[in-house]
Amino acid sequence: MVLKSFVEVHPDSHFPIQNLPYGVFKPEPDSEPRPGVAIGDYVLDLSQIASAGLFDGPFLNSSDCFNQANLNKFVGLGRTAWKEARTTLQKLLSAEEPTLRDNASLRQKALVPMDKVQMLLPVAIGDYTDFFASKHHAKNCGLMFRGPENAINPNWFHIPIAYHGRASSIVISGTDIIRPRGQGHPAGNSQPYFGPSRKLDFELEMAAVVGPGNELGKPVDVNEAADHIFGLVLMNDWSARDIQAWEYVPLGPFLGKSFGTTVSPWIVTLDALEPFASDAPEQNPPPLPYLAEKESKNYDISLQVSIIPTGQEDASIVTKSNFKNLYWTITQQLAHHTINGCNLRPGDLLGTGTISGPEPESYGCLLELTWNGKNPLPLGSSTTRTFLEDGDEVIFTGSCKGDGYNVGFGKCTGKIVPSRP
Amino acid sequence: MVLKSFVEVHPDSHFPIQNLPYGVFKPEPDSEPRPGVAIGDYVLDLSQIASAGLFDGPFLNSSDCFNQANLNKFVGLGRTAWKEARTTLQKLLSAEEPTLRDNASLRQKALVPMDKVQMLLPVAIGDYTDFFASKHHAKNCGLMFRGPENAINPNWFHIPIAYHGRASSIVISGTDIIRPRGQGHPAGNSQPYFGPSRKLDFELEMAAVVGPGNELGKPVDVNEAADHIFGLVLMNDWSARDIQAWEYVPLGPFLGKSFGTTVSPWIVTLDALEPFASDAPEQNPPPLPYLAEKESKNYDISLQVSIIPTGQEDASIVTKSNFKNLYWTITQQLAHHTINGCNLRPGDLLGTGTISGPEPESYGCLLELTWNGKNPLPLGSSTTRTFLEDGDEVIFTGSCKGDGYNVGFGKCTGKIVPSRP
Repeated sequence: MVLKSFVEVHPDSHFPIQNLPYGVFKPEPDSEPRPGVAIGDYVLDLSQIASAGLFDGPFLNSSDCFNQANLNKFVGLGRTAWKEARTTLQKLLSAEEPTLRDNASLRQKALVPMDKVQMLLPVAIGDYTDFFASKHHAKNCGLMFRGPENAINPNWFHIPIAYHGRASSIVISGTDIIRPRGQGHPAGNSQPYFGPSRKLDFELEMAAVVGPGNELGKPVDVNEAADHIFGLVLMNDWSARDIQAWEYVPLGPFLGKSFGTTVSPWIVTLDALEPFASDAPEQNPPPLPYLAEKESKNYDISLQVSIIPTGQEDASIVTKSNFKNLYWTITQQLAHHTINGCNLRPGDLLGTGTISGPEPESYGCLLELTWNGKNPLPLGSSTTRTFLEDGDEVIFTGSCKGDGYNVGFGKCTGKIVPSRP
Repeated sequence: MVLKSFVEVHPDSHFPIQNLPYGVFKPEPDSEPRPGVAIGDYVLDLSQIASAGLFDGPFLNSSDCFNQANLNKFVGLGRTAWKEARTTLQKLLSAEEPTLRDNASLRQKALVPMDKVQMLLPVAIGDYTDFFASKHHAKNCGLMFRGPENAINPNWFHIPIAYHGRASSIVISGTDIIRPRGQGHPAGNSQPYFGPSRKLDFELEMAAVVGPGNELGKPVDVNEAADHIFGLVLMNDWSARDIQAWEYVPLGPFLGKSFGTTVSPWIVTLDALEPFASDAPEQNPPPLPYLAEKESKNYDISLQVSIIPTGQEDASIVTKSNFKNLYWTITQQLAHHTINGCNLRPGDLLGTGTISGPEPESYGCLLELTWNGKNPLPLGSSTTRTFLEDGDEVIFTGSCKGDGYNVGFGKCTGKIVPSRP
């Protein structure tokens, strides 16, 4: 029998009792931020549950991890504590359990309508890394910029390629994105172009939230890497293609990325995603031993991007992809990140890179969808896009289809606003 | 007349009353970390000075910025507060001022012998960025890897090129550096090399510590950028050249850098460096307007690197350079960093990149000094190096020569220890 909550959950909801994703919210504009889990159209205030003494398991009964302004302390506790919290919360929210269901005053305090709350960044992000783990994305970028010979660099098949990103400019879903200004390629011998980016793009990504970290100098074994990952979020790695193209040789992307990166508010745990695990693609050439996993997992997460063009009301779907399209798994990404001794800390973010699939309808950014602006993309019947215009709103969603329920991520959205003069 | 302190300061000291650099220390192993300034062979405990009510100016008299485990709050206060602190401390430490000089009990508490304290990272570093601002370094790298045609990429003359670095693995001077393991180029069609790095290098850099930050979306004007820089430290951006060479296309350096970055404990303020300001080199082509400064400043800071080879006692000088060798100024670096709207936060670190001079004796890393291992470098009379060996200790120093005194940075050191199996 399917587990059910006493909280009513619509069949299309992303947040049934099987999910219970974690976020940080303010119930009122002047409240202190606190952790919560999503259940149907409500947020369960974990600081209230903790104050009521309902986290009564051995790992959490004396912890203040839910009286914090972010989830860093909780995610740093590790899988045993996460499993205890999940068990406690699934029991507390189940239709059969009277403790919360029949306690009107606690329910009133602890269950806050989702449409009334303000969501905040769920973790304080010490460092943010962005990988390049979809072969289709790597191939398309190579075809566009280097041609069909060696479209994918030889190192790509051996290394989960990545760069360090900017942590300060990561924002929560719903935050406006100001069009960046910067330099683009000069025409001939003139000065470089300078002004608002002319090639503003989204990148459909997901990101792993690091749980327990590792000590500097001590790599994480790839077969233990999953214990260092708390869960996943949706991520839009906004990119200014003109700025990026002019600046990135030889040290990689910098200002073409660091003006803003949007994450979804709810972290879906690996435990909630486990029923949707699938085999990762075969890797050929085989990875080096430090990247060879006993079990190599992806997750079947359907991803979709829509755009509401400026001045319009309706969203048009521009791509449909799936987390399964990743070549390098998130556990390989994490193990590779630490093989040189680099230390990860709780709350660090590991982006997957753009998740493009094999078909043109599954490409994960406008650069690929419009082939660098050559093929304008229809948005509904009345307009097209090569890159994003001021006023465009970009909406990511992601979810897994269970038997009678979904485990979803909600939305990750952002609207482009004009450059400041 | 030269300002003098009642604290005895040796003429060769880096820390006369003209300097007063800021750091964070523990007087005893189990003390709480607290801010201090260096004076001669002592550290002045600023938490004691604050508790005694001696920061009596309008900006600091009610601030708890010196009762913190790092300097982030103080550096975030801005130049007016920094000037007030400097005026207060120079007066308090001067030979003529009795307040501290004649208060034996306060002196006992507040002046701690430097050789007894443990120095810690002076700031919590939210984000770390590394620039590539020496033309000589850019040219040498280009000559080695691309040849004399276009040794320097065309974008380099328009953009202070940079990449996002890893904040978690920044360590304080004196911390051992564990040789990283990683992948190097495959030979022919074989698997890539995997093992301890065979080309471990230092990079002679300095880094700016950001003071007040900027709001996301609001660039800092280049002519106001100096108000956002608290001061400078020495920095060793340890680099594994074999890992870097194999991984860096197309997204830039990653694991070749992120295993460790060492900074010196004392932040020398721009106010203390002001007497040593010098004109920055002429820039041709002229920079775009957003990088064109009314006054373009470098500082005359002599830099030196020595190595104590494993098993030996004496250090050999391997290079002598100068901060003046930078083409892009630190204010241009900061303005460029924010032109896309990227937000900086107090305590962020902006590395200059390797500071190489024009002559071979002034190159800032072994890659250049040995021309990628082709020309072994003598260390004393009995040994040579291409790259660093386990047990080698690398020592950076930096100082400005005043009239009868030095304004110096002390040392930035690290010893290489073997990879863990």
